[in-house]
Amino acid sequence: MSLIVQKYGGTSVGNPERIRNCARRILETQRAGHKVVAVVSAMSGVTDSLIKLAREVSPGGEPAEREMDVLLATGEQTTIALTAMAIQDLGGKAVSLTGAQAGISTDRVHTKARIRNITPDAVHRMLDEGNIVMLAGFQGATDSGEITTLGRGGSDLTAIAMAGAIKADLCQIFTDVDGVYTCDPRVVKAAAKIPEISYDEMLEMASSGSKVMQSRSVEFAKKFGVRFEVRSSLNNNPGTLVKEETPGMESVVVRGVSLERNQAKVTIDDVPDRPGISAVIFGAIAQANVVVDMIVQNVAFDGETDISFTIAAADLPKAETALRAILPALGEKVTLRTESGIAKLSVVGIGMRSHSGVAATMFRALADANANILMISTSEIKTAVIVREEEIEKAARAVHTAFGLDAAA
Amino acid sequence: MSLIVQKYGGTSVGNPERIRNCARRILETQRAGHKVVAVVSAMSGVTDSLIKLAREVSPGGEPAEREMDVLLATGEQTTIALTAMAIQDLGGKAVSLTGAQAGISTDRVHTKARIRNITPDAVHRMLDEGNIVMLAGFQGATDSGEITTLGRGGSDLTAIAMAGAIKADLCQIFTDVDGVYTCDPRVVKAAAKIPEISYDEMLEMASSGSKVMQSRSVEFAKKFGVRFEVRSSLNNNPGTLVKEETPGMESVVVRGVSLERNQAKVTIDDVPDRPGISAVIFGAIAQANVVVDMIVQNVAFDGETDISFTIAAADLPKAETALRAILPALGEKVTLRTESGIAKLSVVGIGMRSHSGVAATMFRALADANANILMISTSEIKTAVIVREEEIEKAARAVHTAFGLDAAA
Repeated sequence: MSLIVQKYGGTSVGNPERIRNCARRILETQRAGHKVVAVVSAMSGVTDSLIKLAREVSPGGEPAEREMDVLLATGEQTTIALTAMAIQDLGGKAVSLTGAQAGISTDRVHTKARIRNITPDAVHRMLDEGNIVMLAGFQGATDSGEITTLGRGGSDLTAIAMAGAIKADLCQIFTDVDGVYTCDPRVVKAAAKIPEISYDEMLEMASSGSKVMQSRSVEFAKKFGVRFEVRSSLNNNPGTLVKEETPGMESVVVRGVSLERNQAKVTIDDVPDRPGISAVIFGAIAQANVVVDMIVQNVAFDGETDISFTIAAADLPKAETALRAILPALGEKVTLRTESGIAKLSVVGIGMRSHSGVAATMFRALADANANILMISTSEIKTAVIVREEEIEKAARAVHTAFGLDAAA
Repeated sequence: MSLIVQKYGGTSVGNPERIRNCARRILETQRAGHKVVAVVSAMSGVTDSLIKLAREVSPGGEPAEREMDVLLATGEQTTIALTAMAIQDLGGKAVSLTGAQAGISTDRVHTKARIRNITPDAVHRMLDEGNIVMLAGFQGATDSGEITTLGRGGSDLTAIAMAGAIKADLCQIFTDVDGVYTCDPRVVKAAAKIPEISYDEMLEMASSGSKVMQSRSVEFAKKFGVRFEVRSSLNNNPGTLVKEETPGMESVVVRGVSLERNQAKVTIDDVPDRPGISAVIFGAIAQANVVVDMIVQNVAFDGETDISFTIAAADLPKAETALRAILPALGEKVTLRTESGIAKLSVVGIGMRSHSGVAATMFRALADANANILMISTSEIKTAVIVREEEIEKAARAVHTAFGLDAAA
């Protein structure tokens, strides 16, 4: 008998019929001889409706985060009760637990609380009594009993953290995709599902636009060594197993190719090359709450240098405003150039550490495909380039083929 | 500075605008120099929607009561968060508490739990910090942390019980009526609002059709000596104060007149007058889950007697089925007669204990109004008659006038 944690997102429990489908799948898992804890999100649309109500009662400003948590936590509480009822109606034995009831203890940072520890006594007791435990995702409680929520992707985090706490044999994250693919199948038809991927590769894929899961949940899984599988709630195909790195994994140089669209590039030309300049520039950007991705600084020439970086295109106006305010202080000749309509292409793989020539292969493929490289950035297990948005798809296909990722058709 | 508990029903918090109106009123109370705990129900319609969802996920039968409680408790949790936000948006300081967080401890009888005790430490602490406490009505938790709900009228009960626990100076139940009237103003135009009424009178009025509040909440208030005021959420008029009996109250013979329509009368004729017969009849009725109101048994004649009783007209088919099954065993001559289209008229007042002639005055008024009396029943502080439904309104007006209850026009 295995102990399995499953997680179903808002779409999977979006209406009574889907809740019954989920209930059926959860019950099948138990009837196959396993103990099951199933984490569910709020029914799709519910959280948005609650946020709308919150805005309507507080037109004067942002509602207090403590009260947002009390409000939003009702979404998952509704789903656990309904799913438990559905399981019972199908002849199973189930019991629901809120985050607080399941012993999920968090810090006091409302709307984006961090899990501090989990005391899964109630979960164990209910499992031992033969129950399926329906656990509310996305929520916990402080030591003094205040309701907290875990922020975006919080239900994945609940599943992974609970799987770690109860030493589950497997944690299954059910989504509307089949698993993690070597590239977005809408772009690269030959993309194949990746059977196994390391935490680090998953993290790099996630931060490069393959938004199957939030990085935070993957980081948590890595930290506590929780293996999990990303798979589809619509079929029974095996998904992608995300796990610790094993020696055999390095034999694959590139695990996958990620695309990130809607990027923008900011270039500051003729910046005096003296200490502290970068701190001033990126301090101003951070102050404006803009997240910077790639940064490239050219070598200084005549005591002046160029600094380029990329941000999400949506953040461009904020970034420009922030930079125009500080530019005059940087030097007389300093100028600002911006470019949107660009995209990022990344190849990710822990095999890069021990294989040379990854960049060369990538650049050759891009050149052959006539895709112009605007910026380059590398890390230990990732090589990323910026190309023009209209060239990203052909670039992705070329690179995917060059690294031998195309599925045998 | 007084300590005030207020309660607002589902209609009062039925949409964001109404929630803001409630928030304004609560805030005004605090700004007038009081500490305020405000109990709210689920927004009107929400509980019904949740019940509908529960039925949809469990087409095979009734959902488990434990899970119903987890589900329904989200309704009030939503309202407390939204109302706290609205108060904050209006410049006030507020904090929400679920039943469990407020220390409302109940037994384990899901969907109709009884409050065992209240540990209001959190409530006191939050009040002392200058907060308005928004308290979820209708819910509590068992000692082991299971969520429970209190059944119909549960939010009134929450308000009254919390008022008792924190020794509030006043408990205000806001409803869509102005208070308790000497009679239904839609029937008797001269009906007047009753400024003060004793618990017992309120209970008799409630059980006689004046459904301002559930009897259970009034009984609780009586048991723990909690004074409360029933008043309108739509205006600032003083309402009706429900309180312990005072000597002065007895000077009023009749406090009010209640109407209860849609009654039915069941008569069993020629029943052998021997011990145990009543037990058989009313045992069968109870088995069918039918609540019996008035019971009249005529004196035996020739060893036979007639038994009549009243029930809600809607229960008549159930009662007939139950009785037809046992009639043959009662005796050969026994026959069953039923009559619907009847109504009950009650006069209530603690003054009856010390005043004679109440029944005589009532019957004289009914005779003068040409209203035929079908049954009579009396208790210590109530005299009730059954009349035909089409005569109930003229009967009510006649009796209301006869006891001097008509408002000075």
